[in-house]
Amino acid sequence: MEGSVFNTLLLPDLRQMLEEDDGPALKEFCEALHPGVAAEVLEELDTATAWEVLTHCGPKTQAEILGFLPLPFQVQLVQSIEGPQLTRLIEEMSPDDRVDLLERMEPEAVDALLPLLAHAERSDIRKLLSYPEDSAGSIMTTEYASLPADITVSDALQRVRKQAPSRETIYYVYVTDEDRHLRGFVSLRDIILAKPDATLAQLMETDVISVRVDDDQEHVAREIAKYDFIAIPVVDNQNRLVGIVTHDDAADVLVEEATEDQQRQGAVEPLEDSYLQTPVPTLAWKRGIWLVILLGASFLTAYVISFFVGEGDGATWMAMFLPLVLASGGNAGSQSATLIIQAIALRETALGHARHICFREVLLGTLLGGGLACLSVVIALTLVEYSWQAMVVGVTVFLVVLMGTVVGAMLPIGFKRLGVDPALMSNPLIAALVDVLGVILYYNIARITEAAVS
Amino acid sequence: MEGSVFNTLLLPDLRQMLEEDDGPALKEFCEALHPGVAAEVLEELDTATAWEVLTHCGPKTQAEILGFLPLPFQVQLVQSIEGPQLTRLIEEMSPDDRVDLLERMEPEAVDALLPLLAHAERSDIRKLLSYPEDSAGSIMTTEYASLPADITVSDALQRVRKQAPSRETIYYVYVTDEDRHLRGFVSLRDIILAKPDATLAQLMETDVISVRVDDDQEHVAREIAKYDFIAIPVVDNQNRLVGIVTHDDAADVLVEEATEDQQRQGAVEPLEDSYLQTPVPTLAWKRGIWLVILLGASFLTAYVISFFVGEGDGATWMAMFLPLVLASGGNAGSQSATLIIQAIALRETALGHARHICFREVLLGTLLGGGLACLSVVIALTLVEYSWQAMVVGVTVFLVVLMGTVVGAMLPIGFKRLGVDPALMSNPLIAALVDVLGVILYYNIARITEAAVS
Repeated sequence: MEGSVFNTLLLPDLRQMLEEDDGPALKEFCEALHPGVAAEVLEELDTATAWEVLTHCGPKTQAEILGFLPLPFQVQLVQSIEGPQLTRLIEEMSPDDRVDLLERMEPEAVDALLPLLAHAERSDIRKLLSYPEDSAGSIMTTEYASLPADITVSDALQRVRKQAPSRETIYYVYVTDEDRHLRGFVSLRDIILAKPDATLAQLMETDVISVRVDDDQEHVAREIAKYDFIAIPVVDNQNRLVGIVTHDDAADVLVEEATEDQQRQGAVEPLEDSYLQTPVPTLAWKRGIWLVILLGASFLTAYVISFFVGEGDGATWMAMFLPLVLASGGNAGSQSATLIIQAIALRETALGHARHICFREVLLGTLLGGGLACLSVVIALTLVEYSWQAMVVGVTVFLVVLMGTVVGAMLPIGFKRLGVDPALMSNPLIAALVDVLGVILYYNIARITEAAVS
Repeated sequence: MEGSVFNTLLLPDLRQMLEEDDGPALKEFCEALHPGVAAEVLEELDTATAWEVLTHCGPKTQAEILGFLPLPFQVQLVQSIEGPQLTRLIEEMSPDDRVDLLERMEPEAVDALLPLLAHAERSDIRKLLSYPEDSAGSIMTTEYASLPADITVSDALQRVRKQAPSRETIYYVYVTDEDRHLRGFVSLRDIILAKPDATLAQLMETDVISVRVDDDQEHVAREIAKYDFIAIPVVDNQNRLVGIVTHDDAADVLVEEATEDQQRQGAVEPLEDSYLQTPVPTLAWKRGIWLVILLGASFLTAYVISFFVGEGDGATWMAMFLPLVLASGGNAGSQSATLIIQAIALRETALGHARHICFREVLLGTLLGGGLACLSVVIALTLVEYSWQAMVVGVTVFLVVLMGTVVGAMLPIGFKRLGVDPALMSNPLIAALVDVLGVILYYNIARITEAAVS
C-alpha cells in the first residue's frame, strides 16, 4: 500500500468514527496502523480532536504517534492534555523525541512538568537538555542496547530480548565495561550467526567508529551516511558510552542542513519550521533582515554609479537606482521561489494550497515592499536632486518587491502543475523575468511622475 | 575513534606496507578495518596501487570496499583488473552497487564482461539495468530476506541464519507466498521477542507500506525517512516483491536530490560527480548553458530599456547594458559560490585544495567570460550606435564574469578559514559585491574607450 495515499483514504473513516464515538474502532485506528501513518492522518485534525482520538489508546502508542507529528503540532497538542495523562505520555516518549518537544515548549510549562516525572526520566531529560543545540548530544537517545564482553552469545541473546522493549534499536549492541567505557561493537546479525557458546569478546569489533557528545550534528549525520550505519555510538571525553544517534535522526539532520543551506543561498534566514507552519510575521522578519542588508549593498552600488553619471544629471539619475530596483525585486523573488520549491520538494504543500500560498505571499510582498520602499526613499533622497525622484524609486521598489514575491512563489507552483520540475525554474531565471517587468515599471512610473510634477 | 581522522593516520602506514611488500599486513588492512574506512584511505592512492592493495584480500572484501569508493574511482579501478579476477569481484558486489558501477562503465566493457558472469548474476544485472534511472528499481537491491507465512518463529530464525550471509539486511523480513506476492512484514526484533512456536502469519504486519518499482527514487527516500524504516519493500504492479531499498541508499538519494536542487537554484546544471571530480570542460558546459540562457534574458531587459532611454542617446546607452553586465557577474559568482559551499559542506574538499580550486576557477572564469563576452558584443551591436560601445560591453562582461567566478569561489573558502559558516556568505551578498566592482569596471572601461576613440 502506498504510504502517501493513506490519509486521504483514512481521514473520512476517522471522522465518522469520531462522530459515532466508536471507541473500539478509534483504538484500532491508533494501534493497528504504523504510527507514522496515524500521525499523518491526525495532523489534518485540530489538536483537541487529535487528542480525543489518542485517548483511546495507551500512553506507549500515544507517545509513538506523537513522535511522528510535526513539532509545532506536538507543542499545541500537549497544551490540551491534563496532569497525569501528560506525565505518562512524556515518560513513554523516546528520550530524543521528548527533549525535542520540551525544548520547544514554554519554559514555565516545562518547569511545571518536570517535578511530576519519575526520577530516572527527569535526570535523563536534564542531561539531554544540557547539551548544546546542534550537537551529537542534542539528537542522541539514551536508550541503546549494551552488554558486557564476557558473556556468551546465548546469554547475550537472552539479555537483548529483555532490553528490546525499551531500546531504540537492538540491531547494534555496544559492549561496555563496568564504567560504561565503550569496548566494542557487535551487530545482532553477528550474534545470530555466531556459535551459542562464543563470547562477545571473541565476536566484537574493537575499532569502534564513534562520535563525541559535543561533535556537530552534521558531522554525526555524515559519519552515519558514510559508513551506512543503522546507529553510531556517542561517547564522552573519557570514551564512556552516553548514547546513540540512529539513522533516521541522521537523515533528518541531513535534510534539515541542506534545507538551511538552500534558504541561506536564497537570502532567507533559516526557518525553524516548515514554510506553511511558519507564521507571516516570522517569515517577514527572516526575509526582511536579508532584504535590508542587500538594500544597503545596492545603495553602495547606487552611490558608486553617482560618481560616474553625475548627481541628478537629467534622465541619468535613473541609472543610479536601476540596479537597486532590479536587485530588490530579484532578491524577493528568489526568496519566495526558494521557499516554495522546498515546500514542494519536501511534500509539505499540496498543490491545493496554491490559493492560501498566494494570499500569504501577497501579504508578505506588501509588508516587505512597503518596508523596503520607505528605506529606499530615505536612501534615494541623499543622492537625487528632486524629492519626486526619490518617490519614483520608492514606489517602484514597492511594486517590484510585491511582484517579485508573488511571481517567485507562483511560478514554481505553475511549473509543478504543468508537470515540470519546479527547481528547474531556477531563481536567476525568475530574477531575469522580474528584471524585464521591473524596468517597464520603473521607467513608466518615472515618466508619469515627471509629467505630473512638471 | 573518530572516523574522519582514520585516513591521515593510516595512509603513511599503508604506504610503508606497500614499500615493504608486507602481504599479511596488507591483508589485515583490508579485512580488519570497516570497509568504508579502508576505502577512504585507498582513495588517496592511484587506482593501480589501490588494486595492488586489494589483491591481498578475497573478492568478498574487495567488493565491500569497492562499494564505498566514489563511482569515478570505481570505474578507473575496474579498468586495471584482468579477466577472472574482475568477474569474481563483480559477482561478489551487492546488486545495487554493481548496477551503479556498470551504468558508468563503457558499454563495450559491460558487453565484454556480462557473458563471463554466472547466469544468476547476469540476469539480475540485466533486470536491474532495465529500470529507468532515478526509479525505485534503479536503487533497490534484490538481496532481501523473505520467508513463507506458515512457518514457526524458531524455523524462521533458522532460515534467517541461512539467508543472512547473502542478504543486505536481515532485520526486516518480508513474508511472501509462492508467487512472491508480498503478504506481510516482520522485523527481526519481533521474531526474537516472539514465542518459538508462534507462526509468522500470527506475528506479521499485513498492512505493509511499500513502493512501486517505477516510483521516483525521491519518493522512495522520503517514505523511508518519514516512517523511520531501515528498508522499504519494492513491488511490481502485481504486488510481487522484487527488491528492497535500504536506509543508507535512501539517505544518499536525499543528499543527492538536495544537492541537485541547490545547483539548479544556483543556475548550474546538476553535476553527476562531486565538484573536484568534475573536469573543467564539463563544468564549463554545465555552467555556460545557463549563463547563455540568462544572458538572453538580460538582452531582453536591455532591449526594453532601449525603448525608454532611446538608441545611443549620449551616456544613457550605458544604462541599457548595466543590468546585463551586473547580472552576468552575479550569476557567475552565484554558480561558483553554490559549488564551493556544497563542496565544503559535503567535506569533499579540504581547505588545502584552495590553490587548486582557485586555478580551476580562473580557468573557468576565462572560458565562461570569453564566451559570454563574444555573445554580448554580438547582442550589443544590434542596440548601440557605435561599435566601440559594444566592445565596452564585451570587455566588461569578460572581466566581470572572471571576477564573479573567482570571488564567488574564494569568498566561501576565506569565510571557512575564518571559522564562519560559508553558507552565510549567501549568493546575493556575493552578487552585491560583484555589483559594486562591476559598476566601477563598466564606467571606467567606457571612459577610457571613449577617450581613445574620440
